Amino acid sequence: MNLLVVGSVALDSVKTPFGEIQDGLGGSATYFSVAAGCFTQVRLVAVVGEDFPARHVAFLRSRGVDLRGLERVKGKTFRWKGLYEEDMNEAKTLRTELNVFEAFRPELPSVYKNTPFVFLANIDPDLQRAVVDQISDPYLVACDTMNYWISSKPKALRKVLARVDILFLNEGEARQLAGGSNLLKAARHLLALGPSTVVIKRGEYGALLIRKDSIFWAPAYPLETVRDPTGAGDSFAGGFMGYLSRRKTLTEARLRKALVYGSIMASFNVQAFSLNRLRKVKRDDIEERFRSFRGLVRF
Amino acid sequence: MNLLVVGSVALDSVKTPFGEIQDGLGGSATYFSVAAGCFTQVRLVAVVGEDFPARHVAFLRSRGVDLRGLERVKGKTFRWKGLYEEDMNEAKTLRTELNVFEAFRPELPSVYKNTPFVFLANIDPDLQRAVVDQISDPYLVACDTMNYWISSKPKALRKVLARVDILFLNEGEARQLAGGSNLLKAARHLLALGPSTVVIKRGEYGALLIRKDSIFWAPAYPLETVRDPTGAGDSFAGGFMGYLSRRKTLTEARLRKALVYGSIMASFNVQAFSLNRLRKVKRDDIEERFRSFRGLVRF
Repeated sequence: MNLLVVGSVALDSVKTPFGEIQDGLGGSATYFSVAAGCFTQVRLVAVVGEDFPARHVAFLRSRGVDLRGLERVKGKTFRWKGLYEEDMNEAKTLRTELNVFEAFRPELPSVYKNTPFVFLANIDPDLQRAVVDQISDPYLVACDTMNYWISSKPKALRKVLARVDILFLNEGEARQLAGGSNLLKAARHLLALGPSTVVIKRGEYGALLIRKDSIFWAPAYPLETVRDPTGAGDSFAGGFMGYLSRRKTLTEARLRKALVYGSIMASFNVQAFSLNRLRKVKRDDIEERFRSFRGLVRF
Repeated sequence: MNLLVVGSVALDSVKTPFGEIQDGLGGSATYFSVAAGCFTQVRLVAVVGEDFPARHVAFLRSRGVDLRGLERVKGKTFRWKGLYEEDMNEAKTLRTELNVFEAFRPELPSVYKNTPFVFLANIDPDLQRAVVDQISDPYLVACDTMNYWISSKPKALRKVLARVDILFLNEGEARQLAGGSNLLKAARHLLALGPSTVVIKRGEYGALLIRKDSIFWAPAYPLETVRDPTGAGDSFAGGFMGYLSRRKTLTEARLRKALVYGSIMASFNVQAFSLNRLRKVKRDDIEERFRSFRGLVRF
């Protein structure tokens, strides 16, 4: 099944204790597309500037990503510069240049308007809603968000939540959005706002899938070296949504497997800068890691 | 099989967002004994003062704990006063009165000296070693420790580690003791110091069991209300060691189940102040929660 993503395509400059990269390929829609592209056909909606290197376009195309929704406009591509220090759990943003992303108003190509699976990456909730408005009768809509929108546009965000099936957020955001420190209570609060499934990402501690009557707990793949956590959340969502969108069946069992595939794709992603590990991932690598996950929790 | 624990028996005054308790029963050996006592016969080695209430002694005896190693000496019982704030992850110590614990030099009753399973709770590593010296040919020795001993008595701690099979510590302590932020690398470092198994406790994120060739990841039981985290680590170790000491068999499968039983006993413990939940736990409650753990990670 087709899977649509709307989000950012960016050029990231990142420094971690393991090295650095200048103007590497990045952006939420990029990480998502490449991770999800291992499972299904992804349709991308994003914007880049005139400076966006042709080799990145060629790479995305080589991964099977449908780029008819990638606009190229006058100006410079969105740029982000960040630093991860010793503990690698949180990025320190050194500079954000929105550039062409500032005026981004996603317009879906008409061939995209019947896409059954939709992922709204972390962008202004008003834009997220405008995208949902353009799709006729989607089978499943998921979204991500962040602390900035939770505090600056709470009403717009609630309107989006009323229309999504799956909400992705990290545990700090879950607590912030629900207004309380207990994660289970926070999740129940979020479920009452619309989504039938809440996915709480916890970095090196794995992820939780919380629904009205069930909780599933997926580990993170234990790694001796995490080189660059940039894009972990988006590759997580990509693995999750990519797996899920292979079939119009939303059982608890498939949602659980989706969470594991999300954790797997995030684990590959953080092993190298930019998309350098994800771009080489093969189906066999994914399945081998899937078996490792089973071994990790079997008792 | 018999299981020996050496540690503290204390009177704790604890305040959390859910209430407070004055001079409640506490101490590492107490939490451990009551949790482990659900699985096996526990022999306790500790010291209390003249003020230690007879009802606490009667309670421990009612849970089947062998108290021949509980010394009562002139002076006051060890007292700890602590506060947990909103996030409940770390206690703020308001006051510590060592009292009779200060001069504690554990002397094992001769009937204890052939105990096959031994747990050295978090006390001075020199005392931990002195206890191991008094036991003839134990089948399995485990120990806990804390940041204070890691920084103040590193050499004595290393001598203990060379003689233990299983090391329990929380993730901050693992990083501190190994000197590095990656948890897997830290665990490998610790395995090289003596223990064949390292158990890393991560509070609400569960626990890891790390051996030379395997990693097992156990969740924490998701709770909507954590009333008092005091004793979580010791009841965790109690559940783990209690289950394990039912048989002289140390397979990977049994160690994994032990970790789950540890997580279960810790989850009961934090649901009430002092030992108020643990004291009512029945075998059926434990097995019911064991099944919930399976459901939590099944995919």
